[in-house]
Amino acid sequence: MKLIEDLKWRYATKKMNGETIPQEKLDYILEAARLAPSSSGLQPYKIFVITNKELLLKLKPAAWDQNQILDASHVLVFASWDGYSLDRIESVFNYTMNERGLPLDTMDAYKNNLWSMYEPLSQEWHAHHAAKQAYISFGLAIAAAAEQKIDATPMEGFTPETVDELLDLKKQGLKSTLILTLGYRDESEDWLVNMKKVRTPKEEFITEIS
Amino acid sequence: MKLIEDLKWRYATKKMNGETIPQEKLDYILEAARLAPSSSGLQPYKIFVITNKELLLKLKPAAWDQNQILDASHVLVFASWDGYSLDRIESVFNYTMNERGLPLDTMDAYKNNLWSMYEPLSQEWHAHHAAKQAYISFGLAIAAAAEQKIDATPMEGFTPETVDELLDLKKQGLKSTLILTLGYRDESEDWLVNMKKVRTPKEEFITEIS
Repeated sequence: MKLIEDLKWRYATKKMNGETIPQEKLDYILEAARLAPSSSGLQPYKIFVITNKELLLKLKPAAWDQNQILDASHVLVFASWDGYSLDRIESVFNYTMNERGLPLDTMDAYKNNLWSMYEPLSQEWHAHHAAKQAYISFGLAIAAAAEQKIDATPMEGFTPETVDELLDLKKQGLKSTLILTLGYRDESEDWLVNMKKVRTPKEEFITEIS
Repeated sequence: MKLIEDLKWRYATKKMNGETIPQEKLDYILEAARLAPSSSGLQPYKIFVITNKELLLKLKPAAWDQNQILDASHVLVFASWDGYSLDRIESVFNYTMNERGLPLDTMDAYKNNLWSMYEPLSQEWHAHHAAKQAYISFGLAIAAAAEQKIDATPMEGFTPETVDELLDLKKQGLKSTLILTLGYRDESEDWLVNMKKVRTPKEEFITEIS
């Protein structure tokens, strides 16, 4: 089906039925997330795929007791870098140059220019900027899930500090940014499923300057 | 074509050939962006669609002189709210309730809870948070473009203050967040077109906790 039809089909599923999604559909969704573009190609985020019951039981209160944490098939936590560093940037660029069969110093001027922009900015700015890149990936994971007729709940409603502790993210230089639960809607129990999808009207959303 | 194939096909086009894309493809891309999910459904961003030559000539230096600003068919500027306010939230929620045929006070508890979380946070945090929502929409616009075989260049490389001035965004309570140029690749002149697409390896990108 076409992307727009998929986007109309999907909604933030509030009640899932506990069924497990096929591994190949999970893999497909994760691959779409991995293929997302990011600023300077740094991909400053990772995805944790959680099915461990014990961990999910602890995650639920951190996610403000929302049921989909336990009713989902898989819970994805998008965790982004807590900041940029020259080491982190170099590591990605070196990998990219290796993969492209180019000399490691090919992007040195770009890298130094990038770092001269990032270095003076606060750690907080860095973390926001890295998190923003994860939102692109998150959007593509949502689109991929809809294409596969897998329901998903995009979630910002959780306490990041608690999730960081549960996943031991600080030690990995990461911060929990977004949660996406994957599973199947329970139509009979979901108050949102039959609500009209409402978006900003087109004429307000778009301004043409021609 | 499937989303993953579209994502493999696309790349950040560095050189476009100046041809115009069909109106129905532009509309399709904008509609995908409009259908994107956002935190609490607030959609705290808009899109400016620019084809005005005079404006584009001023935009190019603000976008660090990158050629695609002039070689593109259309230049989209995603502009997000400079902050949240109870008025802004109420306005969106009232519209949503009207569209759903529900009493205006249906979401009052949710709204008050949301505002009690946002109010103490800084204007800077608000702006980052609103901008993050635009990144989801941006990701979906990129996917929609690829599905339509329209090339696109995702851009953060511009001076937002200058773009804000050019589009008179401050008066509208907006900040320029992202640029997406749309058009067609000029394969013979684009250094990036034949480079291998490199992403974080799957085993590093994904952590399973089962």
